[in-house]
Amino acid sequence: MATYNYPTKRKPYTERKISTSNRGMLFEELINETNEQYLKRDIAVIYKKPTPVQIVDVDYPSRSQAKIKEAYYKTASTTDYNGVYRGYYIDFDAKQCNSLTSFPLSNVHHHQVSHLENIERHGGIGFLLIYFNKLGEIYLLKAKDLVEIEKRASDGGRKSISIDEMREIAIPIKESYPIRIPYLNAVDFYIEEKKIK
Amino acid sequence: MATYNYPTKRKPYTERKISTSNRGMLFEELINETNEQYLKRDIAVIYKKPTPVQIVDVDYPSRSQAKIKEAYYKTASTTDYNGVYRGYYIDFDAKQCNSLTSFPLSNVHHHQVSHLENIERHGGIGFLLIYFNKLGEIYLLKAKDLVEIEKRASDGGRKSISIDEMREIAIPIKESYPIRIPYLNAVDFYIEEKKIK
Repeated sequence: MATYNYPTKRKPYTERKISTSNRGMLFEELINETNEQYLKRDIAVIYKKPTPVQIVDVDYPSRSQAKIKEAYYKTASTTDYNGVYRGYYIDFDAKQCNSLTSFPLSNVHHHQVSHLENIERHGGIGFLLIYFNKLGEIYLLKAKDLVEIEKRASDGGRKSISIDEMREIAIPIKESYPIRIPYLNAVDFYIEEKKIK
Repeated sequence: MATYNYPTKRKPYTERKISTSNRGMLFEELINETNEQYLKRDIAVIYKKPTPVQIVDVDYPSRSQAKIKEAYYKTASTTDYNGVYRGYYIDFDAKQCNSLTSFPLSNVHHHQVSHLENIERHGGIGFLLIYFNKLGEIYLLKAKDLVEIEKRASDGGRKSISIDEMREIAIPIKESYPIRIPYLNAVDFYIEEKKIK
């Protein structure tokens, strides 16, 4: 079959890589679906923690059902997801990023970084899952790299991770089906890397 | 110094063992305090999960603060506590028991037993912490024993664990201070036991 070089205007790289299946679907929902698949297939037991809520007033209209009448969202002191995989303690947070060029550190609370650092010191596997939705790229950013980059920022360095740096240091994850965000493949890679060191 | 055998009436065993310091203090609070100590001393990173709440209606009186106007408590699908210790995934629930003679299995939901069974199959450490508040006795009941006893009950056996059986199969925990319920000592014991098998 012959090939031709049509003088067509190619769509920019970033646009072509958007997966249509995910439009309007939050990254978190994809992770939740993934965890359900992991649980169903007996691969891992990983859950999202409930959203912490400060309850102020509760009404008891009937004995069986308590109705919360006043409550407020609280800031989580840790990360959203944790569980067990291959005997390892897994702990992470999922972040969606609208930028085409970098991941701003303002997306991560300092206490989350400290928490992930604690996790790793105690032999757990801590990381962020970062979804560049406009690039259609997903990365596992290891806790140790996040800690270093936060330190760099507090020492006066840049307050974000450029997409180039992300591509260099983080582990890429490819969307798939029915395991939507197969991040445990990246975790396998991370575990092997830890063993070598 | 001479000793005398006074013909005094001794208080019954169970009463004497009640620690006055805990009266009115819930077991859960003691566990939370313990976890804070473990975290502060860099021994382990173990948190209580937030209580799951089904949010129905939210009001936004100001941009900064969302007010939840209607919500209901949901049944947790897992256990209350998890985290990492010595590289192990730790997962447990805390149960207070008013009986002097046995721990009724009705205190544990079937899905919690299944969850703990999943945890152990994936290499985690799953258990219940049971506080017999009238006896002042605390036990770590291993997931595998809980699973067996639940099976025994569904096969027509007794629907509770007698205090004698508990003393035989579970690992005792002694209250102390400032680590109030030093359950990780019992976890150390459990880990060694697993290694031998």
